[in-house]
Amino acid sequence: INSARLLGWMDDQAKIGATPDGGLSRPALSAVDIEVRDWFRDELQQHGFEYRIDGAGNQTAFLKSENPDAKTLLIGSHFDSVPDGGRFDGALGVLAAFEAAVTIKENNISLPFHLEVINFTDEEGTLTGLFGSSVLAGLMTADDLQHPRGGRETLIEGLTRAGLSEHGVMDAERDPDTLLGYIEVHIEQGTRLEKSSTDIGVVTSIVGIRSRWLTFTGEAAHAGTEPITERRDAFMGAAEFSQQAFALVQEKYSPGVVNFGMVEVQPGAFNIVPGMAKLALEFRHGDAAIFDAMEDDLLALAAEIASDFSLGLEIEKAHDVIPAPMSEKFVQVIEQAADNCNLSHTRLMSFAGHDAQSLAQITDSVMYFVPSVNGISHNPREYTAPEDCVNAANVMLQAVLRLDH
Amino acid sequence: INSARLLGWMDDQAKIGATPDGGLSRPALSAVDIEVRDWFRDELQQHGFEYRIDGAGNQTAFLKSENPDAKTLLIGSHFDSVPDGGRFDGALGVLAAFEAAVTIKENNISLPFHLEVINFTDEEGTLTGLFGSSVLAGLMTADDLQHPRGGRETLIEGLTRAGLSEHGVMDAERDPDTLLGYIEVHIEQGTRLEKSSTDIGVVTSIVGIRSRWLTFTGEAAHAGTEPITERRDAFMGAAEFSQQAFALVQEKYSPGVVNFGMVEVQPGAFNIVPGMAKLALEFRHGDAAIFDAMEDDLLALAAEIASDFSLGLEIEKAHDVIPAPMSEKFVQVIEQAADNCNLSHTRLMSFAGHDAQSLAQITDSVMYFVPSVNGISHNPREYTAPEDCVNAANVMLQAVLRLDH
Repeated sequence: INSARLLGWMDDQAKIGATPDGGLSRPALSAVDIEVRDWFRDELQQHGFEYRIDGAGNQTAFLKSENPDAKTLLIGSHFDSVPDGGRFDGALGVLAAFEAAVTIKENNISLPFHLEVINFTDEEGTLTGLFGSSVLAGLMTADDLQHPRGGRETLIEGLTRAGLSEHGVMDAERDPDTLLGYIEVHIEQGTRLEKSSTDIGVVTSIVGIRSRWLTFTGEAAHAGTEPITERRDAFMGAAEFSQQAFALVQEKYSPGVVNFGMVEVQPGAFNIVPGMAKLALEFRHGDAAIFDAMEDDLLALAAEIASDFSLGLEIEKAHDVIPAPMSEKFVQVIEQAADNCNLSHTRLMSFAGHDAQSLAQITDSVMYFVPSVNGISHNPREYTAPEDCVNAANVMLQAVLRLDH
Repeated sequence: INSARLLGWMDDQAKIGATPDGGLSRPALSAVDIEVRDWFRDELQQHGFEYRIDGAGNQTAFLKSENPDAKTLLIGSHFDSVPDGGRFDGALGVLAAFEAAVTIKENNISLPFHLEVINFTDEEGTLTGLFGSSVLAGLMTADDLQHPRGGRETLIEGLTRAGLSEHGVMDAERDPDTLLGYIEVHIEQGTRLEKSSTDIGVVTSIVGIRSRWLTFTGEAAHAGTEPITERRDAFMGAAEFSQQAFALVQEKYSPGVVNFGMVEVQPGAFNIVPGMAKLALEFRHGDAAIFDAMEDDLLALAAEIASDFSLGLEIEKAHDVIPAPMSEKFVQVIEQAADNCNLSHTRLMSFAGHDAQSLAQITDSVMYFVPSVNGISHNPREYTAPEDCVNAANVMLQAVLRLDH
């Protein structure tokens, strides 16, 4: 691939929505997002690609195959960013794919499939999160469009800004039979590659996420007269559970993770033993069967500790995201491509959500990561070294060519 | 003493401010509190005592000594209750003392000190908490009167209802040289006596209370991509500290107690590792030197855990109540009085606040407890058996007579 061209594009796109501290604020379908989309359209047209845009605003650079039975391989990511985000998250994935496609086109390589470099609309959630990829994969409902996370006004304004309307959104759904698969490269947003000095992380699964409210109930009591051993202290139980849950997940479910992001105790006074403690439990794993076992184990632990502390326990589902396993065939293609480029690689799970989790529902999909310095992401200090950006494009090129064999 | 008379009075007072569930709502200087105060005035006058009321509304039944150098022994407690409280907390202390005084008067026993049976105003905190006893002991400032816990309006309305005004409140302060001491009997509001089948608990100290805000600060992070071992999770540190603090206090500072009555974490989302956790720490002990060591140990533990979890720690004082040691001489008087009545007794600390902690600052003071069934208090289900009420008065009588020797 042409490293200078790729890195030049990375600099060019980073100017559109740039923040003074070197980051990016480019919410989906905002004025600056429209600007980067126009820039991408111009670039791909200048390089002789056919420009396509679907009803959800997904943009593609289309490279037609001569094969009459050709399916389509999608490669790409997203140009939108979180507010005050970084310049690599998403953009590198689109441009590394585009660089691979341009290299193929320049070398007049004939592919047995159509190739589309795709910029998905609203991966980050200004509108709904994974908006373009969900619509394309048929995962969005008409009702979802009525209640988008960012509000209906933001959705409709954004679509209008892109020359689209909500009536055409669902037309973006694709027939899975027309698709060969999906490949996405992304910065890791973690430190596993950096710490192990590994070039490429091949994602075997995008983790599922389960969020639960756990309410421990004991009895509020006078913090002076009620001896510690006599109390039914709901916070004591909740705190003990959180500590044991961390240990359990690390010992038995690594690399799965668990978090307690919110805690509320009542009645809430210095001198009253808490009668109620509500804990926000979130846990993630990439393997559906292990994920279920993890949930069973965590909830059994909570019940056991509640019983030990003479507490009641209520569990309430807040949210579920199902795990998205990547295609083993495609995983191996990425590993072979990395080998081809003399790059070290390891398998890992993605603990953040990506457009690939939508695509994985309908076609062979895979993601791979390049290192993020210090794991920093969604932050202006997000940084991936130029050689890692170049690796991203070279692996993409080799993977696409390998699918040719 | 006359058991029937004492138990009759207990029933009579419980009708004033009675709640349908058998409890009492008799906030200080409310209309029903004025009613019980009038009832007490009438009773003591009918039994030939001189009625006195000071500027803070403390009522006394005065029994004059013939000794020209006589000091005054105060005995009593309070008639006010918390909202939806019980019928024994406070009332038993006034009436057991009154019964002892009536018995002394009926038997024409001459005492070498003046005896005053006292009903302190607002022990429970409708106005300020320990209102009458604090003013009497010179612990209340003019500024406290400007910022009472229950609001200035409640204070002024209450004083007016009792025929008093805020200008006269400070006149209730007494010269410590005029006082011989103070004795108060109260229900335990705990289960130590009941569990050990002991009749009388002689209080050696009313515990000090220290309230501190502990703020652990780490770094907010993505709950998916940030591995558990890499996190600086403020809640993980706070929860670990709470668990170790309970163990430390039980192992090393029993019967001291500790509580975490409030917890707040930020930023506060299922998918964000907490960057900040604020914990309300309250701990109590009755021995000033051990209390200081306990604080040092707890805060050192917090600092050690903060360091282990790579967290910052800030400690902020919220409130201090100093321990109030009882008079050893008076403790022994109560023990001898209990022996005299063939009642079993044990020494213990009071973990709740009482008027005796005000009096202990200026004169020899002691409290003793009789059992509370199931330790329930500040609750309509509060209950102390009739024989324990009678014991309360008999011990008071013997103690007062013993001070005669």
